[in-house]
Amino acid sequence: MTLSAVRPQSDAADLPDVAGLAALLPAGTILTDPASTARYSHDEAEWAPWAQPLAVARPTCSEGVRTIVRWCLEHGVPVVPRGAGTGLSGGANAVAGGIVVSFERMAAVLRIDPVERLAVVQPGVVNDDLRAACAEQGLWYPPDPASSPWSTIGGNVATNAGGVCCVKYGVTGDYVLALEVVTGTGELVRVGRETAKGVAGYDLVSLLVGSEGTLGLVTEVTVRLRPARAPEQTVVGFFGSLVAAGEAVAAVARAGIVPSALELLDQHCLDAVNAWKDLGIDADCEAILLARVDAPGAAGAAEADAVLASFESSGASFAARSDDEAEADAMFAARRLAYPALERLGPVLTEDVCVPVGRVPEMLARVQAIGVQHDVLIANIAHAGDGNLHPLIITPAGDEAARVRAQAAFDDIIGEALACGGTVTGEHGVGLLKRAGLAAELPLAVLDMHRAIRRALDPHGVLNPGKVVG
Amino acid sequence: MTLSAVRPQSDAADLPDVAGLAALLPAGTILTDPASTARYSHDEAEWAPWAQPLAVARPTCSEGVRTIVRWCLEHGVPVVPRGAGTGLSGGANAVAGGIVVSFERMAAVLRIDPVERLAVVQPGVVNDDLRAACAEQGLWYPPDPASSPWSTIGGNVATNAGGVCCVKYGVTGDYVLALEVVTGTGELVRVGRETAKGVAGYDLVSLLVGSEGTLGLVTEVTVRLRPARAPEQTVVGFFGSLVAAGEAVAAVARAGIVPSALELLDQHCLDAVNAWKDLGIDADCEAILLARVDAPGAAGAAEADAVLASFESSGASFAARSDDEAEADAMFAARRLAYPALERLGPVLTEDVCVPVGRVPEMLARVQAIGVQHDVLIANIAHAGDGNLHPLIITPAGDEAARVRAQAAFDDIIGEALACGGTVTGEHGVGLLKRAGLAAELPLAVLDMHRAIRRALDPHGVLNPGKVVG
Repeated sequence: MTLSAVRPQSDAADLPDVAGLAALLPAGTILTDPASTARYSHDEAEWAPWAQPLAVARPTCSEGVRTIVRWCLEHGVPVVPRGAGTGLSGGANAVAGGIVVSFERMAAVLRIDPVERLAVVQPGVVNDDLRAACAEQGLWYPPDPASSPWSTIGGNVATNAGGVCCVKYGVTGDYVLALEVVTGTGELVRVGRETAKGVAGYDLVSLLVGSEGTLGLVTEVTVRLRPARAPEQTVVGFFGSLVAAGEAVAAVARAGIVPSALELLDQHCLDAVNAWKDLGIDADCEAILLARVDAPGAAGAAEADAVLASFESSGASFAARSDDEAEADAMFAARRLAYPALERLGPVLTEDVCVPVGRVPEMLARVQAIGVQHDVLIANIAHAGDGNLHPLIITPAGDEAARVRAQAAFDDIIGEALACGGTVTGEHGVGLLKRAGLAAELPLAVLDMHRAIRRALDPHGVLNPGKVVG
Repeated sequence: MTLSAVRPQSDAADLPDVAGLAALLPAGTILTDPASTARYSHDEAEWAPWAQPLAVARPTCSEGVRTIVRWCLEHGVPVVPRGAGTGLSGGANAVAGGIVVSFERMAAVLRIDPVERLAVVQPGVVNDDLRAACAEQGLWYPPDPASSPWSTIGGNVATNAGGVCCVKYGVTGDYVLALEVVTGTGELVRVGRETAKGVAGYDLVSLLVGSEGTLGLVTEVTVRLRPARAPEQTVVGFFGSLVAAGEAVAAVARAGIVPSALELLDQHCLDAVNAWKDLGIDADCEAILLARVDAPGAAGAAEADAVLASFESSGASFAARSDDEAEADAMFAARRLAYPALERLGPVLTEDVCVPVGRVPEMLARVQAIGVQHDVLIANIAHAGDGNLHPLIITPAGDEAARVRAQAAFDDIIGEALACGGTVTGEHGVGLLKRAGLAAELPLAVLDMHRAIRRALDPHGVLNPGKVVG
């Protein structure tokens, strides 16, 4: 294998002939027609830059992925891995002259082991499909990003996706035991283990999780599972102000309760959902909190009571345990529908900051002030229980001035999150949208450590160039 | 700062004058008298090689650690970090011509935050001391290695230490949120975060945890805490054979129970403990299992019943829920005392393999067969619930032939663990004793990834050279 430097940009005259790669793979693996390359050119981060790729590869096996990476190494062609394209930071956005590797045809659940409590899956398996397959055996795969009906385990691994139940059960990375990976030198290797514990060497699994395809292309994932849990109980609180809802979140933490969900939606979200699909949620308030607890039996009831007491002591205008499961499910459906409902109003710039739980009220107040200051509509959904806020900045389609103001608001929110001791991305990843934020968050010496690791594992610079760190 | 290549070995004529370093630090920081350098020359891995260090440094602050590392970089001197020296793989063993950095004088709990549920500590804090400090505020730091009365959080981080409750609550790395580190280029940096979630950049925290001081020297640790949990209930089972006890472990997993402890002790351990301290445990059996469960209220009682049923269906000669807390504590005390009790019989070569839980019975049978085959005494303690076995090979003091046979048994156990789909080290780390095992476990391409990362973060090769990977 001879290696070339990665081409800095697309230059048609200079591009290698992808037919050579196509010939190495089963027919139908490589797509080059403009409709296909356009369809795979970016994820859901509308505001991040992207380019039409040279080609799209849809391999059906790990060896196929290795063949693609080796060809890219030989020809100095960038490789951009892609799950379902539901990412919100541009991590899967195509690079000019590069090849997008879509894992849609590697979507098998290979094995579920009820004794070791693990599942082995291909990266293209949809999150909800894995959960359903596990449930059939009395097992549970917890990580549940809002994109779970569409997003894939491979994409979840690439971004270390969070979700709703993560406040109690942790994020994707907490469940990844082992990975099969094509490395930046074109090797197909396994890292990690199938045992409950293990410290044989550096934790390469955790290093790869969340690295957004910049340190290797994941071709198989082994995840840890839990036994199915007790049924959840729901507590709902309505609040006259965002800040009061934030105070209630901090009160739950102070009470020593770990809810299995603690979500915040503001009035803008509820209005947008109600205008789109009438879920029958009467919301005469500025924010609602949706909490769930899942301790078994009487302990769960005590948890629910403690959450309720925290809501009431924080000034909820109404708070109740929901005994009506349909009603509770409608509330959580509203939370899940908030993002697409808001997108109907115009392009949405999605924030993803995370602050210490005790700073949530303060941070929500700062977000509101930023909206006023820049004259932009900011709706708020939040995994409030772990301080992960998603201010959604909505601009009217085609309004360029509003778009500029939205960008300024986005930058200010990042600045305020850092001032609150927070981070620029709680669960969406750095991709392209948070590269400046990352540079603001990390000291230069730590960025240098990132670059050194990247050079070590992607010595030829072909793996998703331009993402995370330069 | 000018840099020198690391000296390959001690050569008195060629060694730098440590007085130059001592002059940069408060009086008493640097020890060079032979009694001191001998005292810090190795950890508890008796069989691993070690050397008398050039000096011992006992810094009192992070800046002091940086000063030491920078001086070592300038003079090409190896740096070996050391916690309490309770390690069992030789990771803290001194290197000829090197400096041992002991964190014993950096032992403060700096902050416990009950709302964010985290603690910030210096690396020299003893594990049990942190747990006690947290308990005063209704909080709990779970990782509980058997060395917890002596071992330090810094050492626990270096090895990613496990423990008894890890079967339900995870290992040290699952609790580390952030680290302050002196890097291989002499920078003092922070990695990680204080928020519940965060994906800003690569997971350098997990990479550093378990890296045994080869990628940086940890000078401060931020750990996640849990609320205090419900009281535990204990179930004890006596078994006529090791294999039957192993079957009971697999039966508990199949029953969908996650115990908060599931420990195995064999007759050799019980005999040794009884001969040392009479704990009143009558053990007419080949192995006992000690299980604990901690679901709250009736759910916990149901868990205990399910564990009991698993023990009985696997052929326990006696099994019971222990309502006598003193009796239950005595059982767990025996588990904790097993290692020092066995050491009274002669040098102990400690194994630390981990296999899939379903393979525990098979692996225990293989260990017994290896003991017979090599004519060595092998006692077994095990964190059986997560498949982490500690066969302890005991040889009479001074019996060189037995020592050679023990080494052969050690190697065979590693081989059998790998054949069972296991790992060569579940929680003790690679250090020196498991370097060959690591090379057997990992493919060459994965070892190359380790080396590339090590070169990236320790470009001058001063950080604990010779440990983990070359």
